Order: sequence, then structure tokens, then C-alpha cells
Amino acid sequence: MRHILKSQQFDRPCLDKLFQRASEHRKSFAKPRQHRSRGYFLQDRILVNLFWEPSTRTRLSFALAGLHLGMKVETTENAEEFSSTVKGGSLEDEIRVVSSYHPDVIVIRHKTEGAAERAAAVSQVPIINAGDGAGEHPTQGLLDLCTILWEKGYLDGWRVVIGGDLVKGRAVHSLVRLLAKCCENPSFIFVSPPSLRLNEDTKAYLRKQRVHFIETESTREALPAADVVYWTRVQLERYPEGERQRYEDLARQYAIGLEELELMPGDAVLMHPLPRNEEVSPDVDADHRAAYFRQAQNGMYVRMALLEWVLEE
Amino acid sequence: MRHILKSQQFDRPCLDKLFQRASEHRKSFAKPRQHRSRGYFLQDRILVNLFWEPSTRTRLSFALAGLHLGMKVETTENAEEFSSTVKGGSLEDEIRVVSSYHPDVIVIRHKTEGAAERAAAVSQVPIINAGDGAGEHPTQGLLDLCTILWEKGYLDGWRVVIGGDLVKGRAVHSLVRLLAKCCENPSFIFVSPPSLRLNEDTKAYLRKQRVHFIETESTREALPAADVVYWTRVQLERYPEGERQRYEDLARQYAIGLEELELMPGDAVLMHPLPRNEEVSPDVDADHRAAYFRQAQNGMYVRMALLEWVLEE
Amino acid sequence: MRHILKSQQFDRPCLDKLFQRASEHRKSFAKPRQHRSRGYFLQDRILVNLFWEPSTRTRLSFALAGLHLGMKVETTENAEEFSSTVKGGSLEDEIRVVSSYHPDVIVIRHKTEGAAERAAAVSQVPIINAGDGAGEHPTQGLLDLCTILWEKGYLDGWRVVIGGDLVKGRAVHSLVRLLAKCCENPSFIFVSPPSLRLNEDTKAYLRKQRVHFIETESTREALPAADVVYWTRVQLERYPEGERQRYEDLARQYAIGLEELELMPGDAVLMHPLPRNEEVSPDVDADHRAAYFRQAQNGMYVRMALLEWVLEE
Repeated sequence: MRHILKSQQFDRPCLDKLFQRASEHRKSFAKPRQHRSRGYFLQDRILVNLFWEPSTRTRLSFALAGLHLGMKVETTENAEEFSSTVKGGSLEDEIRVVSSYHPDVIVIRHKTEGAAERAAAVSQVPIINAGDGAGEHPTQGLLDLCTILWEKGYLDGWRVVIGGDLVKGRAVHSLVRLLAKCCENPSFIFVSPPSLRLNEDTKAYLRKQRVHFIETESTREALPAADVVYWTRVQLERYPEGERQRYEDLARQYAIGLEELELMPGDAVLMHPLPRNEEVSPDVDADHRAAYFRQAQNGMYVRMALLEWVLEE
Repeated sequence: MRHILKSQQFDRPCLDKLFQRASEHRKSFAKPRQHRSRGYFLQDRILVNLFWEPSTRTRLSFALAGLHLGMKVETTENAEEFSSTVKGGSLEDEIRVVSSYHPDVIVIRHKTEGAAERAAAVSQVPIINAGDGAGEHPTQGLLDLCTILWEKGYLDGWRVVIGGDLVKGRAVHSLVRLLAKCCENPSFIFVSPPSLRLNEDTKAYLRKQRVHFIETESTREALPAADVVYWTRVQLERYPEGERQRYEDLARQYAIGLEELELMPGDAVLMHPLPRNEEVSPDVDADHRAAYFRQAQNGMYVRMALLEWVLEE
Repeated sequence: MRHILKSQQFDRPCLDKLFQRASEHRKSFAKPRQHRSRGYFLQDRILVNLFWEPSTRTRLSFALAGLHLGMKVETTENAEEFSSTVKGGSLEDEIRVVSSYHPDVIVIRHKTEGAAERAAAVSQVPIINAGDGAGEHPTQGLLDLCTILWEKGYLDGWRVVIGGDLVKGRAVHSLVRLLAKCCENPSFIFVSPPSLRLNEDTKAYLRKQRVHFIETESTREALPAADVVYWTRVQLERYPEGERQRYEDLARQYAIGLEELELMPGDAVLMHPLPRNEEVSPDVDADHRAAYFRQAQNGMYVRMALLEWVLEE
């Protein structure tokens, strides 16, 4: 049984196949409806979206990926029912029960780091991790890498500037590890205020993989060297209420606007996992380097390929 | 690409065709299941319900309209995720992203006037406005007009008494403009307390179209002259908390009960967009003039016709 | 038109047929996908889940039961929209409207005892009660009985120990009445603190049916005599906030752990309607007598059979 729990579970050959398949899906939508053929081996299979945190975009991305493959989709965004009256152990019980209803795959999002692994340990069907707390968000990492491939033409040797919330940004953690593990010779410039620096865990991983990286507080110094710029939102909802204002003020100092855009090379690509706040100005949306909406769309193609991978026999 | 954004976008010939098609759908349900034929050109098309405000009836009306046409339906009622931590611009970003997942149509409901037009401006697929704040609710206007047609036999020359919340009632705005634009010689009597009078905008529109209307505070004076009585709920949720009690008290004075029913002509028709509060008493439900439940059902037939109209090639 | 409103509406011959059909469904999942045949007479029928209270497990159980039968499923967990601004009568109006959209069956869960009967009185399509307040939860009762059949081999003559919240536990009420009405010679030992004793209504019913029962506060005295042990959660959400702590403390004294398990006969079966709190320790999950996860799964098979029963022509 194949689960998708963390981005590092994939190796390069597997990624090459996945992105190839995602590309076929992308191309199929360019064809007239009657000429699309997606090899409906997933016809009438059932995908259950089990979300303890709402996330419209990610959830709909999986749902539409499933529907385009002929699957049926059932959803809950209220998995946290009775939260005030049922305590502890409910994740495992919930997965045991729902997986026993014979769905074909369960996609979960949960507030707690490690939730996806705990789910997989008791599930009768494959689990896909759609984000567990500040932990992993592997399908985001994969779609990010796929976007680098499609925007830049290949995956190896890029200088990647990553900015914003490097503490709580699980998308960052997944992408960094994926690049370090599966791509040749990446290097990183991490841009953040001191309080939002990359966690030691991920840095230790990079050192072990002998990946070059530097940390800076200056956006303006980092951007001119970038092949890829990956910017993120401060995950305010993961900080105590009392500290949010301080983090919001910080975020405003680390924003990408037209001035910052000018500092980027003409063939750089600007990515963001969305949703965004003020850290990427709508002024830059029209620039050809602004890839975040294409990136979001790529997510659906990658998830189509991942659903097929999980369910192939 | 066809959007449905406001009721005035339709002209009479288009309405005649739509209501004819809606009528065919209505009749198809009277047939045994195996004899129903709805020309399944929408088979497997995908409808996404993107609701920033919950609205069970409207949402299910679109969903079942879609399902009866063979479509697949995916929904969110939590489009406002992260409302406390993501600010500004999220409507446009959300529509850009969701419409890039290749649904066939997006139905949106939003708290903000003008949201549907903003959505249409950035969407890759057709947008249907299922209510944007105190703005428009065009499919409600269309189903109201269709109900007048089916209850009264034709559309022209009716005296329409409209009562209740004429300030925030978007259903009223949509219906009044639609009658003024597409029907011959309508006239209106608007019944409300002074604080809930029809907005100047809509009145100006009526004057421009040379449509006769009067305003009164007296339900009892208005009803005897009515061909159609359209009653509405005070939209308490659109007023500040502190003022709600006052509006509730007002609403109680403008209620339709058995006494008011007696004042209506025997061939009048009593409509209400639902949900209702105390402004229409359940006592009148059994009367043949009480058309609000038929009206709600007509909504689904009209939405079937509208989905076909939006997606026909 | 067939509704499912309360467990007592069924008689033994009907149950025998239902459980036989549920068993066929269970077996069908053991076969390879291409050899499953479920006699798709429900293909493309529409099930609407109308939930005024969220309940992930029950709702998904119905949804997947429907999907496995080829049905389409549409859901709302927000049926209580506008709760602060629309008052009274909304249940009936909602059912009138939604049932007029031509779904094939509506599954409702509601906070109020008697809601399902009120819904059935105005609905144009069959209603299935998925729990109405402290009232009934008939499909839970049926799946519980089916689990006793499948775990113990037959239905008659069992000594059933029922513990926990016997006041607000609607699952208990449904199961007790069902055993008393449809099975030969059942007997009960009810275990609870004095404040959570079985309601007089249900006890009167047992006396009328000449069913033997005793009440005790001692778990340890009751367990050695059990053929079936049915344990329940204190329904904290149905008690005033101020009393919850007291009930939680009580619940902790009436818990099943490894010590209690040792007191049960080796061929006893331990059931629980889930979700659970601390009243059944995860320590006992691995024991062969712990049947609650099988019980939850059986629920989906039973609901498949019930959907067929409701919609057969």
C-alpha cells in the first residue's frame, strides 16, 4: 500500500515519471473535450478529503484532480467535531473508521505535526498528507519542484532564494529537502528576519547533504543572484494571538513589489504557495516571472499524477 | 464566455427561451425515470459551488440542478478560510486559482457587493452570481419572474406589491429591475416602514424606465390592488447587532397572516424568496395563493436552464 | 413512501432480510473489484445529507454507502445557517424546499427530539433519521443489532450489559427497544451512576414487553455475566457547560480497561457507538472481543441495505 507522507520519500527517477505524467495531464486539457483520454482506470474510485483545518485551494485541487480522473469525491471540513467534548486519540479512531468504509484513498489535513504518519499506521487504505501542522506538505513540495522544472526547463543547479516565514512554513521545509535530495547541486539563500530563520533540523539536513546555503536579512542582497525566488506568507495562525501584530509588521518589511522585482534577473521565476498577504504585491502579478498562479494550477496536474501513482496496481 | 452577473443582462427573448427550457425540465420530472431525457450534453461537467456565506437552499438548488443534468458538483462553504490572517485581494486570488483547475462553471456567493463582477474579471471559466452582499441575486430574480409566469399565465401588465426590507433585500432589487426592463407595463406598490424604503438607485431606474410606482407604509391599503404580492424578510444579518432588535420589532408589524390574506384578490399570488421569519405566517401556507414553496422549486428548474445556457457551445 | 424514523418501526422478518442484504454487501467487498455486483438499481439516484449537527462518521457512512451503490451525494453540515436571524419553523421550510428539488432520499441529523418525524410529515421524498437530539438514532440501533448477530451468530437470548450515559444516549434507547421488540428473551444489566440512569420511558417499555432488567452502579458486578457489553460516552455536549466537569469525572469511574476486560467472559463482545472518550481505553483495542471498529464498518453495510429498502419500488 502506497502512502504519500513526506516529500523525501520520493527519489529522482520516481519524480521524473510523476512529472512526465503530470505533463500529459496538463496537455490533455488543451485538447477538445472529446479527444481527451486519461485512461480512466480510476473511474468510480472514491477519494475522501478529511480536513481538520479548512483549506479551500488544496482541497479543491485534490477534489478536481480526482473528478477529472473519473473518481467520486466526498469531503469533510469538520473533522474536528465535538472537539470540546471528545479528547485524545480521535485522529486514529477517525481514520480506522473512515478507512473501513472502503474508500480508495484518504487525503488528510491536520493541525498536528506527524498526523499523517499516525493516520497511515492505522489506515486500511492509502493516506495522502495534505499538510500536518508545521510538519510536512509533500504534495506542495512536489508541485513546487514540478513548477521549477516547467518554468526553467530542468531541475539541476539552481540558486534558490527562499524568503518569509522559514520557521512555520511547511511548504518551505518540504521543498528544501526535496531539492537537496533529488536535484543536482542546488544552493539556497534564505531571507528572513532573525526570528523567522530556518529551523536547525532542516539546516542540519542541508549540511549532511553538503548543500551550500547562506542566511541573510536583506531581500535586496539576495534577489540579484536568484534563479528561483520562493516567497512565503508569515503563518500568523500558527503563532500566539499576542505575537501576530509583531509578525505582521515584520512581514511588511519582507515584501516583493515592483522595486524588488527589478532586482531579479530577467529569467528568474517568482513562486509563492498561496494564499498570500502583503508579502507579494498584486502589482507584480502581470510580470512574466510571476509564476504563482501557474504553480497553483500545476498542483492539480501533479495531484492527478499522484492519485494514479498511489492507486496503480 | 457567458457569465450570469446581474438580472438586467437578460432581455425578453432570452428569458422566453430560458423559461421554456425550465418548463421542459419541470415536466421531465413528472415522467417515469426511464422516460426522462434531458439531452445530457453536460454529462461529467464540473460545477464548483464557492460560497463565502453559507446558504443551504441556494447552494443545494444549484447542486441538484447540476446533478440532474449529469454534472459533478464540488462545494466549499468555507471559502473565507484564514479570514483573520489573510486579508485583501483573496477573492481575486481564489477565483484565479480555482478557475485554473478546469471546472466548467463556478457559482459564487459573497458578502460583498460587486464580488461577482470582480470574480468574472479574473476567471478562466463562467461565473454565476448566487448573491453578492446587498448587490444582486440574479438567478433569484429570474426564478421569481418565472414563477409569476407559471402562476399567472403571462408576464405583462401586473401590479406587484413588494413589502418588507427594500433596502438590503437584493432579491427585491433584482426582481424590480427585471420586471421594469423585460415586462410590459408593470407597476409597483412598495410597502415598508420609512427606514426600510427602496433605495434611490432602484427608484431612479424605475423613473428612467417610466415605470409607475408608489410607496406606502400600509400593508392593508396595498394588498387589495395586488396581482402579485412579494414579501421579504428583514435581512437582520446585514444590520449592526445593536439595531437588530428594532428591525425585528418593525418586521412584526409588516407581517402577512390570515387577515392580510383576506385582503388579497382571489387570483393574487403570494411570493417570498425564503427563508422566512415571522413576516409570513405558516397559517397561510395552505392557501392556494401561497406560492413560495413552488417558487423555491421553480428555482431549481430555472437553474438547470441557466447552467445549460452558460455552457452551451 | 418509506421513511426510517425510529428503530421500533421494524419487525423481525424485516430485520432478517435487511441483515441478509447487508451481509451480501459485506461479502462483495471481499471480491476483486471487477467481480462485485451490487445490482445498481440506485445508479445516479441522489442522496442529500442534511446535517444540522456535524457528525463526520455517520455522515460519511451514509455517503459512502450511497456512493458504493452508484448514487450521487450532496451534503450540508451548515443547515443551521442564519441561526441568529431566522427563527422557528425553519426545519419544516427547509425540508419542504430541499425535498422539492427531486433528491431521492434525505438523511437528516438534528439537535431536536422529534425532528425526523416533523421532517417526514412535510417531505416529498423519504427521510432517514440519522439522529435527532436525545431522541432516536435508528440506523445506529440497527447496525448495533446487526453487529450482535455477526459477532455472536444469532440474536436471541443474550444478556446485554449496557453502561455509561443512559439518559442522553440515544443509541442506547434505540438498541434497547429494538432488542426488546425483535429478539427472543433478551435481558439487560444497566450500569451507571445514579444521575445517568436509564429514563423511565424506556424502562416502562421494557416492563410492558416483560423484559428482565436490573440496574447497578457496579461495573465489576455486571461484566462477568455479559454476553454483550455495550459501553457509551457521556454525551457532554447535551449537558449545560457548568455540569460537564462533574460528568467527566463520573465517566472516568465507569471506564473499561484491561482490568475490566478480564472480568468479561472469553466469548463476550465489547461494543461502543463511537466516538469514544476515556470510557474505553485504547489498551483493549487489540483484544478479539473489542468489536467497536467492526461495528462502525458494519454500519456502512447496514446503511447500504437500508438505502435499498427505502428506495425499492
